[in-house]
Order: sequence, then C-alpha cells, then structure tokens
Amino acid sequence: MIYDLIIIGSGPAGYVAAIKAGQRGLKTLVIDKKYVGGMCLNWGCIPTKSILESAKMLQKVRSAADFGISGIDTATLSFDWQQAVKRTQQIVSKLSRGIEFLWKKNGVEFLKAEAKILSPTQVEADKRVFETKNILIATGSRPAPRQDFVEALNLEELYSLESLPEKPLLVGRGANLVELAQFFNMIGKEPIILADELPLIPSLDSYLESFIQKKLKKDKIPLIPIAEATIKDKSIVFKDKEYPFDMAINVSFRDAVLPETVPDITLEKGFIKTDRFHQSSIPGIYAAGDVNGKSYLAHVASAQALEVIDTIMKVELPREDRSYPLNIYSEPEMAQIGMTEEQIKAAGIDYKVNQYSLNANGKALAEGTSEGFIRILYETKYHEVLGVQMVSEHATDLISEAGILMELEGTTFDLARTIHAHPTVAEVYMDAGSIE
Amino acid sequence: MIYDLIIIGSGPAGYVAAIKAGQRGLKTLVIDKKYVGGMCLNWGCIPTKSILESAKMLQKVRSAADFGISGIDTATLSFDWQQAVKRTQQIVSKLSRGIEFLWKKNGVEFLKAEAKILSPTQVEADKRVFETKNILIATGSRPAPRQDFVEALNLEELYSLESLPEKPLLVGRGANLVELAQFFNMIGKEPIILADELPLIPSLDSYLESFIQKKLKKDKIPLIPIAEATIKDKSIVFKDKEYPFDMAINVSFRDAVLPETVPDITLEKGFIKTDRFHQSSIPGIYAAGDVNGKSYLAHVASAQALEVIDTIMKVELPREDRSYPLNIYSEPEMAQIGMTEEQIKAAGIDYKVNQYSLNANGKALAEGTSEGFIRILYETKYHEVLGVQMVSEHATDLISEAGILMELEGTTFDLARTIHAHPTVAEVYMDAGSIE
Repeated sequence: MIYDLIIIGSGPAGYVAAIKAGQRGLKTLVIDKKYVGGMCLNWGCIPTKSILESAKMLQKVRSAADFGISGIDTATLSFDWQQAVKRTQQIVSKLSRGIEFLWKKNGVEFLKAEAKILSPTQVEADKRVFETKNILIATGSRPAPRQDFVEALNLEELYSLESLPEKPLLVGRGANLVELAQFFNMIGKEPIILADELPLIPSLDSYLESFIQKKLKKDKIPLIPIAEATIKDKSIVFKDKEYPFDMAINVSFRDAVLPETVPDITLEKGFIKTDRFHQSSIPGIYAAGDVNGKSYLAHVASAQALEVIDTIMKVELPREDRSYPLNIYSEPEMAQIGMTEEQIKAAGIDYKVNQYSLNANGKALAEGTSEGFIRILYETKYHEVLGVQMVSEHATDLISEAGILMELEGTTFDLARTIHAHPTVAEVYMDAGSIE
Repeated sequence: MIYDLIIIGSGPAGYVAAIKAGQRGLKTLVIDKKYVGGMCLNWGCIPTKSILESAKMLQKVRSAADFGISGIDTATLSFDWQQAVKRTQQIVSKLSRGIEFLWKKNGVEFLKAEAKILSPTQVEADKRVFETKNILIATGSRPAPRQDFVEALNLEELYSLESLPEKPLLVGRGANLVELAQFFNMIGKEPIILADELPLIPSLDSYLESFIQKKLKKDKIPLIPIAEATIKDKSIVFKDKEYPFDMAINVSFRDAVLPETVPDITLEKGFIKTDRFHQSSIPGIYAAGDVNGKSYLAHVASAQALEVIDTIMKVELPREDRSYPLNIYSEPEMAQIGMTEEQIKAAGIDYKVNQYSLNANGKALAEGTSEGFIRILYETKYHEVLGVQMVSEHATDLISEAGILMELEGTTFDLARTIHAHPTVAEVYMDAGSIE
C-alpha cells in the first residue's frame, strides 16, 4: 500500500494537517514517537494555560470579599499543586482522545514509533518501511539545552514534580517565561527571571514590552539580564545583591527537533529550510511548524500545515501576509496582531494610534478587571488597520475581532460603525474607532 | 442664547448623543430629572452585571477546590448583599463621573430638572425657557405597572433593599428576568419565574430559548406561564403544586417614559413614532432609544442617538440594516447577532448551519467553562454569514467578532481562513468556518 501522506510528529502542525488530509480523502499515516498532540498539548500551550487558570483562580478567591463573598479566610488559602496537575491531566487526556477520535473519523492511521526518512517516498518506523507520495515533517522544537545551568529542569518535567520550588530561577526568554514567572508569583512563590536578552518577548511591540516589565516590577519579580549577572551555585548576584534560588528552570529559546533522515535536507541555523509552500530542499518532503524555524506559535504551525495540505491538493493558498495574533496569558492578558509600531515606522508608513483605556468600561469594571487598554494602529489615508494591541482580562480572546477585521482589510471607521453590545469589554474597539 | 440641541434624558441614547454632539461642535444641553446615565447605568445594565459578577464569583469560589485551591470551607460561604451593592455603587459612581467629565470636556451643559417641551424650539425646565434648534427625546422606558401584583418591587428599588427575599417571584418576561432568576439561584435563594408569555426572551432564536429553558430546569428554577397559573396572596398554584413566594418583583415589558409636551407628537402603541432618521411627527423633534419603541437594547439606543447627530449634521447615515448583538448575561452567557433561523426560513433563503461545540476547546477546558457552542447560519451561495449564536463564558464579548464580520459582509470561508490564536475560545469561529 502507498500512503498519500506520512506526517512525522503530532503537535498543532501534525494533528491538524492529518485531520484535514483525512477530510480531503488523502490516505494518511501519523507517526509520533511519544505523545498524541505534541509539546503544545502535553506540556506546552494547554497545561500551562490550565495551571495559569488555577493560579488566577487563587487570585480571584483572594479578591472575592470585595464582590460580597463572605466566609473565606484568606490566611488559610493555599495552592494544591498535585490537584492542579491532576486537573491538567484530565484536560490533556480529554483533548488527546478528541484528536484520536477525529483521526479515526477521517480515516487517519496512527503509529507510535520513532520515524526515519529513508527517501522522499519511504519512511521507516517500528521496523517496517512505509511507502508514501508525500512526507510532512512536523517534529517541532524543544528548549535549547543550557551550558550554564546543566541541571536546569526541562519544562516537560515540571508536571512530574511532587512539589514546586520556593524560589525558582527561570532562565531564558519569551512569552512562556513571563507566564511561568507570574504563575509562581500568583501562588506565593518567589520567582527570579534571568533573561538571556531584552526585550523579554521578541516580536512584541515595545509599548507592551514596557507594560509587562512594569507589571513584573510591581509584582516584585526580579528581572535580571544574564549579561549583567554573576552566576553562583545556588544564587545570582546582580548589582551587589544576591538572589538565592532553589531550582533553575530552562525556558530557553528553542532548537528544532529533527527526525533522522537519509536524504540530505538543507538546514538553516539548525531548522529545516522551506519555501513559500513549506517544501524542503527535497521535493515531496514538507516541514511545518517550529521545525522550519519560521515561527514558534502553535496557530501558525497549524496554518502552515493546512497550507501543506492545500499545496498537495493543488488548492490555491491564502495570501501570504495573513496576520496572526501573538498572545501572552499574563495577568492581565496581553495580545497583539499585525504590525508593531516599530515595524510601521521602519516601513515609512504615515500612521496614527487610537488608544482607549478600559478604566471607563462598564463591563470591565463590573468584572473587577479594568486594568488595560486597546491601541489601534492605522494608516492615515484610508484608516486601514495595520495592528492592534490589547491588555485586558481575556485579551487573548478579544484580539480575534481584530483578526477578522484585518483579514477583511477593515478600517477604524468600520470599528466605530459596527454596533457593539453594551455593556461589553469589546466596546473598546468601537470607542477606539474613528468618527467619520 | 440658542442651543443647537437640547437632549431630554441621559441614558445610553442621551449621554452618547451629547458627547458626539459636543465633539461635532453643537451647542448642547442635557436635561435629566434624576440620574446621569439613566436607567442603564443606575439600575439596569451596569448594576445588574455587577451583582451578576458577584454571584458568578460565588460560583467560582465554590468550584475553586477543583482548580487546586485549598482552604475554602464551602459550608461557611455566604453572599453579602450589602457589600455587593456597595461595590456596584462605586462602579456606577465612577462611570457617572466619567460621563460628566466627557460632557464637560466637549462643552456639553447639564441641568438636573424635569423638562417640558413647549414647542419644537422651546423647552421649559427649572422654571426657565431654553431656546433650541433641535430637540432629542431620550427619556427611555420603565417596566409597565402590574394590575395583578400592585405591590411588586420595582427593579429600581432592588438596590435599596437591606436584605434579599428568600423566594422571590419574578413576574414578566425578557433577558433581564432570566439574568435575575439565575442571580438569585446562584446566591442560594429560590426564585420562581412567572412568565407573561413564552418564549421567555422575545427575538431570541428558538435554539437558544430552548437551551435557556433547559438550563433553568436543570437549576430547578420553576418556570410558570401566567396563563396556566392561579395567583394567590403569597403563592402561585401551577399543575396542582403550590409555590410560595415572599416578594414579587416586576420585570415586565416596558412602557415608554414620555416627557410633558405641548405640541401634539404622534404616538404608536404608547411610544413616539419616528421615521428612518428617528424624527418624530414634528420636524426638529427626534426620539432615540426605548422611547421610540424600536428596541430595548442600550447599544441600539446609542446607535440611534448617533444617527440623530449625523442627521442634524447632514452626514450620511450608516446602512439601515446593521446587525446588532442581543446579549444575555446568563450562566453560561448567551449572545446572538443577525437573523435567527426562523427569520431566515421565513425569508425563504437557502441556508446552512455550522455548529461547533466548546467541549473540545482547549482554552475553555482550561478555564473550566466548556459548556457551550457556536452556531453560524449562512446562505449557501456565497457562504455570507447571516447570523451567529453563541453560548459560552464571555459569549457576550466573543459575539463582537461576528459583529465586525457581518458589518464587512464576510463569509464562513473568511472565518476558516483567519488565523485564530491557539489556545483561545475564539478558535470555535475558525472551527465552525467552511473549508474551501
């Protein structure tokens, strides 16, 4: 038998591609050496959001008296890590089963094994050789191992800890570092950030970067640039002050996870080099998601993977410059989409920014979460929206309105003209629109 | 001095119109006999959402152990009505000050007095006569007084109660009746709904109506159609069962609140009859919001009021068939926009429904709120979206993505093509989109 497509890796690139391939009638086999759902489902996006929701729940409980909830003794409140993990595992297992169900429903086969690409049409796994017309490498990435903290905990291991460190040292950079630091802080630990580089979150608008740095400061989470630090055995010295830690956690930038391949696939900085169609240097072998080095975002991985299926099916691809959100599940949440102010300036575009605070938003006040704002960046000629940035509870969901607006090339006039329900947080889109 | 515009009433029609009129340079005077912000701000939209958030907070605290929060004795939890009201008053007062600030900033004058329209160019208030070029009546509505429950509490009085009834009888119909019933239920009271008519929520798609009726049943909130009930002094008899109540609350459909007018303005079913430009039978006298009987929604009132300003300024109005959301702040929240399935059928349009459940949505599971779904109704030729319905936590905010989509006449293909961030609840829009 010859498969139409063999997918190696089952994260947000692999599993999404498999479902769509099945729907399109392609005979598809997914091979993953470990988990269904990959890093994102098993120890990335989903588990981190689940434990963050637990920590945010603790914050809510602490503030409940203000809402009129009596009978809570905040002094007795504590965080039960084992229970938070148990809840997380239930969610992960439910979602895994959901993926396997969708695969089965769409005729996708699955094999748990290590795969080796023998040729553009042959994959070896579980001591067998599978013939295929196309191969999609979707093996993802993992935090680069650290020379400076060789014993640092890998994020994958976090969920196996029986109890959490009191003074975790988070070494690395990126959105998940910030999320993790806030997680530890919210549950009463004393995290320290040792940043490989600043800005902390690459690709983020400097306005949001500045907001999050201020927030960390307000929460008394030390942010130490590694270049200015002296690393000792169990402490960091920075500006004459010593910061002891009891566990280092590796939240470094990621390296590609490459499958074993016989054909000589071209790499670029360690990632698989691909073209517009996510095809590697070898025709018929595609690479989508983190492994091709274009982005580390799960939804971009899925979008690329869908484009691979479109390419195989000879369907025209969506336009290349589609906007996609960058979400940070911080407290409050942050989200951005489209161009940053720096990018707009660099492109020499005449632009304006409409900014609107949440502190006069009735729904945000009713929810007790009015810290935040929206910023809409648009070009001055037609008022087409180029970028949107938000800080608010649920900003990661609210940004989707900007996504559809930008997909349809909408303007700030469209935002002002669209009737938004009252009272909603989303009214800020209308408030920040432009009067004709 | 001659005003360009006198606005009578300062609810979501009046205050929004005043701000925009000021921005446009119109010499504007607002007259309100009671509150800045009208019913919506003072005892409608905002206070009800605030106390609902308090009740939802109690629900969250009850479920916190599942998230890993230890140290809460759910048996000792109770609802402190006085504190919930105090918090509500702080929010209301902050928003009132915000409105007055925006008025001042835009040169709008305010007079607290009862107004009487003497002619299309003269308004009497506080024993003075003010000359004006235009008048906007934005006096709103109030629940119709009841003949069957003459002693029923008016919603306006709810916030002055020292303590809440144990078995409130909610008489009337509509979204706020459902919200109030769930509020009482969530804080441990035993509400009874006595419905003037079914469906409970007019204009709601029957799919959502059926969902909310099932939810009320599950929560053991009796729903009794008044036509089948026998009303006794302190109880309702329905199907041989007696339902005692200790306080009746009037949540009836609303009557217009009409200002005293000398000129003979044409009414229709008790509301001021207006044309496309929200102009009454008397040129120069406009009526926006509940008082014209077109809608009871705050955001529609605001939209109408802005159209009045556009008309006065001779700016072309937005298209007449703009969609607007209908939000119900129930538990879970419900929202709809555009045509209902019944309306689409009645119009003879070929349509399809894409429905997608939240129970495989990673973010909803992480938040612990995966009860819900999205339904997208679209015509089959171009796949243009005609209506969207949602049930989910924050559905009232999430519906705004559908708002902008429909304003821009988008399709289900656009939804599927737009990259939605992972993990988000908003991904259901993409999931429920159509593959090309």
